[in-house]
Amino acid sequence: MKLKMYLALALLFCHFSMLQAQDDLRWLNPLQNPDENFVHGQGWPGLDYHRLPDEAETKVRKAVWNLSRHAAGVKLKFNSDAEEIKVRYVVSSRQSMPHMPATGVSGLDLYIHDQYDWIWVRGSYSFGDTIQYTFPLKADKITAKDFDLYLPLYNEVTFLEIGVDKNASFNFISPSNEELPVVVYGTSIAQGACASRPGMAWTAILERMINKPMINLGFSGNGLLETPLIEYMASVNSSLYVLDCLPNLVRNTFTEEEVTKRIIAAVHALKAKKPETPILMVEHAGYTDEWVNDERKTAYQSRNNLSKNAYRLLIAEGIEELYYLEKDELGLTMDGTVDGTHPSDLGMDQHAKGYYSIVKEILD
Amino acid sequence: MKLKMYLALALLFCHFSMLQAQDDLRWLNPLQNPDENFVHGQGWPGLDYHRLPDEAETKVRKAVWNLSRHAAGVKLKFNSDAEEIKVRYVVSSRQSMPHMPATGVSGLDLYIHDQYDWIWVRGSYSFGDTIQYTFPLKADKITAKDFDLYLPLYNEVTFLEIGVDKNASFNFISPSNEELPVVVYGTSIAQGACASRPGMAWTAILERMINKPMINLGFSGNGLLETPLIEYMASVNSSLYVLDCLPNLVRNTFTEEEVTKRIIAAVHALKAKKPETPILMVEHAGYTDEWVNDERKTAYQSRNNLSKNAYRLLIAEGIEELYYLEKDELGLTMDGTVDGTHPSDLGMDQHAKGYYSIVKEILD
Repeated sequence: MKLKMYLALALLFCHFSMLQAQDDLRWLNPLQNPDENFVHGQGWPGLDYHRLPDEAETKVRKAVWNLSRHAAGVKLKFNSDAEEIKVRYVVSSRQSMPHMPATGVSGLDLYIHDQYDWIWVRGSYSFGDTIQYTFPLKADKITAKDFDLYLPLYNEVTFLEIGVDKNASFNFISPSNEELPVVVYGTSIAQGACASRPGMAWTAILERMINKPMINLGFSGNGLLETPLIEYMASVNSSLYVLDCLPNLVRNTFTEEEVTKRIIAAVHALKAKKPETPILMVEHAGYTDEWVNDERKTAYQSRNNLSKNAYRLLIAEGIEELYYLEKDELGLTMDGTVDGTHPSDLGMDQHAKGYYSIVKEILD
Repeated sequence: MKLKMYLALALLFCHFSMLQAQDDLRWLNPLQNPDENFVHGQGWPGLDYHRLPDEAETKVRKAVWNLSRHAAGVKLKFNSDAEEIKVRYVVSSRQSMPHMPATGVSGLDLYIHDQYDWIWVRGSYSFGDTIQYTFPLKADKITAKDFDLYLPLYNEVTFLEIGVDKNASFNFISPSNEELPVVVYGTSIAQGACASRPGMAWTAILERMINKPMINLGFSGNGLLETPLIEYMASVNSSLYVLDCLPNLVRNTFTEEEVTKRIIAAVHALKAKKPETPILMVEHAGYTDEWVNDERKTAYQSRNNLSKNAYRLLIAEGIEELYYLEKDELGLTMDGTVDGTHPSDLGMDQHAKGYYSIVKEILD
């Protein structure tokens, strides 16, 4: 009995200590004021942490709409002098996959951005009904800071709050209208599978390399160069449109004619709406099991041939500001994926470096 | 009722088809014949898929013994002309971790080895009570092949069988006594956290780069340069001993004197038993959050200073064939880990490259 009483008292004490600790924190919800947009990496305002407007539900296939709820490429930016930043949030789906850890599927990444450099901030985490991250900042040199907080790559965020000490400064930063974003339409690879954390998707690495905003329209298994998506892209004022859908167009359900038709139609549609905006067509990066699977090797190579031919046709037609990134420039090596298709952080790093030269050249 | 009957018939049919498919396979258990050893990556025969002899249970700490059950660095080698290789196996612990996917914690990796090259083979997998991998080989050029099958990095394998077509050739390959192994004593990083698959642990990458056998004595959180482990190492005839334990010796529980003492004692003990065998001392690779955490930066730097000083003392003493690998040569970059400590595949690739030059120089 005595032991039970002590235990109960101890638990009560823990409970109060936790409440106390929570009390010292100021919790901020970036969606609290609907008139102000603090969410980055989106083509349209007022989307919570989603990637397509709610009205898209009637315009795109169900699978695309579901995937558009995932927060891939969605970020929060804020400035704070806090010595510790906490985030608590809730996601709607499974927290990990067999080939992608919870830190990538459902985790966060925090970077400090000063004028020239990015500094990664380690977070300790606990995955549960509410996921919690704590980011300590214990470096003397670093005081007031601009932060980029990357949201989960493969999950929907239904609730999120950031907690800092009551005495710490904290300001969310709104997206700037000055710099037009790079808009990427792609597959699971563009969405971020299988990065170990959100900051390691190739789009996120590239974003830090070029220091320009990016919008991730990667839809796992569903980057099919479809008309509604191209129309959504064309509605965003962009510095560059990237079309990286070939990995989802290798299936036999898509004939060679159909693939060529979709590529050409996509470029035409984008150029019709935004003639000045450059377009980058990207080849299939290859399968890392191509040495033991002739079928898969032939499948991606044939798509890359179609893509190259379509590019030549479009150039011959007189389309301007149309660029092309070849498989070999993407530089994915044999050990760069977890499953033959989806890059690990190693493959993501290779992708980002492969993209960098041409994207920088286009944007400069 | 009619529907139910059709369903029942359909299920029955599926069941027979599966039995039929299984019947066409020959299932092979590499442990079936206790007189023949087909398991690679171990210092002693007859260990099943473990890394220390059973008698170690009374000699090492409980945590080390438990971790020694994990199959990190343990491999099977075989030759076969099968067009499809299946593996079914059972593990004893949790199949994934929040920062390391099931494919790394509990998965397999298959590589083909010809005289000069390694070719990675993609496997499709299903994780359940019994884990199953299917590795298709659909390349015309590839016929009879030598395979390396890497077992799970962070789990114990309690049962394993390989299935090939009845008409396919299949032979397990025994470890050769000709080439002495490199023996690595280390921490979670050496054990393989957080590679996305077993072939991406740095020891595995390095093994393929140097084409020499390696023995992985990495013990997550428990690579503490302890006497029993050093004695086990010294009992293995080796081409090189690697001491990579500093990441577990940064805790305050280990005074500076204690760390220095353990390093020097380890080198003395190895040299006493195997004076001719080179030893490579390795620095802490650093924490990738060092820019925002002065404490962690100071902690690893102080250990590296101790290590360097100990190395100088040992050299001054006249110890021969003692080598040293510095943090900067390991080349871990800011984005090379998943959590500030444990390398992703990107960091693992950096580690392996960092090790390569010096290990090659020592062994050649």
